[in-house]
Amino acid sequence: MSGHLYILGMGPGDPELVTRKSERILRQTTLYAYFAKKGEVGHARKIADDMLSSHHQELRFEYPITTEIPHQSDEYKQTISLFYDQSAKTIEQYLQKNQDVVLLCEGDPLLYGSAMYILERLQPNYTTHIVPGITAMSGCWSAAQLPIVKYEQTLTVLPATLPLEELIAKLRLCNAAVIMKMGRNLSKVKQALQETGLIDKAIYIERGTQAAEKMMPLTHYTELKAPYFSLILIAGS
Amino acid sequence: MSGHLYILGMGPGDPELVTRKSERILRQTTLYAYFAKKGEVGHARKIADDMLSSHHQELRFEYPITTEIPHQSDEYKQTISLFYDQSAKTIEQYLQKNQDVVLLCEGDPLLYGSAMYILERLQPNYTTHIVPGITAMSGCWSAAQLPIVKYEQTLTVLPATLPLEELIAKLRLCNAAVIMKMGRNLSKVKQALQETGLIDKAIYIERGTQAAEKMMPLTHYTELKAPYFSLILIAGS
Ligand SMILES: C[S@@+](CC[C@H](N)C(=O)[O-])C[C@H]1O[C@@H](n2cnc3c(N)ncnc32)[C@H](O)[C@@H]1O
Ligand SMILES: C[S@@+](CC[C@H](N)C(=O)[O-])C[C@H]1O[C@@H](n2cnc3c(N)ncnc32)[C@H](O)[C@@H]1O
Repeated sequence: MSGHLYILGMGPGDPELVTRKSERILRQTTLYAYFAKKGEVGHARKIADDMLSSHHQELRFEYPITTEIPHQSDEYKQTISLFYDQSAKTIEQYLQKNQDVVLLCEGDPLLYGSAMYILERLQPNYTTHIVPGITAMSGCWSAAQLPIVKYEQTLTVLPATLPLEELIAKLRLCNAAVIMKMGRNLSKVKQALQETGLIDKAIYIERGTQAAEKMMPLTHYTELKAPYFSLILIAGS
Repeated sequence: MSGHLYILGMGPGDPELVTRKSERILRQTTLYAYFAKKGEVGHARKIADDMLSSHHQELRFEYPITTEIPHQSDEYKQTISLFYDQSAKTIEQYLQKNQDVVLLCEGDPLLYGSAMYILERLQPNYTTHIVPGITAMSGCWSAAQLPIVKYEQTLTVLPATLPLEELIAKLRLCNAAVIMKMGRNLSKVKQALQETGLIDKAIYIERGTQAAEKMMPLTHYTELKAPYFSLILIAGS
């Protein structure tokens, strides 16, 4: 007899964009876990605020590294893998005591989410459940009221962390596109969009569905860096 | 003074996968509209069942044509465009009387959804709101517990209605992929996946998140046609 692990999508930011299912499971479960960067509340944790009460107990997993080490380096890979090992072990201790654990995730858990590293470690030995979440891109194209794909158009989702040449090659073949993980990759992405003739179609959205939401044509966004919670939308044509 | 149009994503099928926001707006609004095929309840309408009460009033828009006419034909285009004109006009009559209208949509409204044709007709003259929904693909990869993209992988969403050659060309360049709108396109899609060496990675899911959900490796699915509510997932690698 072990507890179950519930991996809950919490959506892009607006707490009302949580599903009835994620809300119910969170309210019914005592123990919730989440990832957060040092010094920050944690995006998924913040979204959960109004669904937490005094019976809840928290497990906070703080990323040991942020952007100081290149993500391709062995050091990064080892550090982050150890971190996921330890986080999974912590969750496992409760599952073994027959306690259910909820893992809160921003957006949808299985689209570039850290939860998948916990899932792959615990899935073989425990009962796991995944509740999908509204993705950041859905939240953003809805806020922009931008039909993203119709008819026979195709949609490609690209991480801005790809090398410039790959971004350009992939954007050339794209119809509709979403570019995620902007941050320090902004100027590279702008260059790729310029070279592929897409820059005038690109919409920049930051903190979509949140109180601090900002939205504008990318050509109007003149900062050198974008915040972590931002993405670019290019509707199909 | 006119009413507002609320376009609500209702998710892939499980009524618990509706967001708190779509639920609240639907409960608060008297008049709801939806699209449905002849002889069917309507997918979005069915999902809404437990949120409707006696104060609600229904506008049903029945598609005039289904699969009898090729979608590229002028006849199809004219018929469907007239149908959207008339549906928009019907909604408009209520907006003009200062009544709010909710339009229920399966999945997310702006990802291959009919709602966008109503949006483009009414957006210029009325206040419109869009509430994102859990997409069919998120519902399906969560049900399959299949991490769809991580790290620097890219995700491409393709309609199965594309010609064989285009499917092959696009699949060759794909990392992770989702193929939607299966139906009568199943054998074409199988051929494209065979030729691109992806068939053994393909997961077939039908009626994801619903009571009748079916899920299996595509190679185990031996029917000649797939139902309308089915899609194929290929996780990134
Ligand atoms: C690690 S990915 C996680 C994606 C998430 N699992 C989802 O389903 O959308 C983080 C990226 O999501 C995007 N993102 C997340 N929330 C956002 C928001 N509210 N507005 C704009 N972009 C957001 C940003 O591009 C960010 O760099
Ligand atoms: C016109 S598209 C609408 C997509 C929807 N707006 C969304 O966000 O997912 C219809 C296609 O969605 C897919 N689909 C919708 N619901 C599904 C479900 N419950 N299971 C599997 N596929 C589904 C099928 O591929 C179907 O042909």
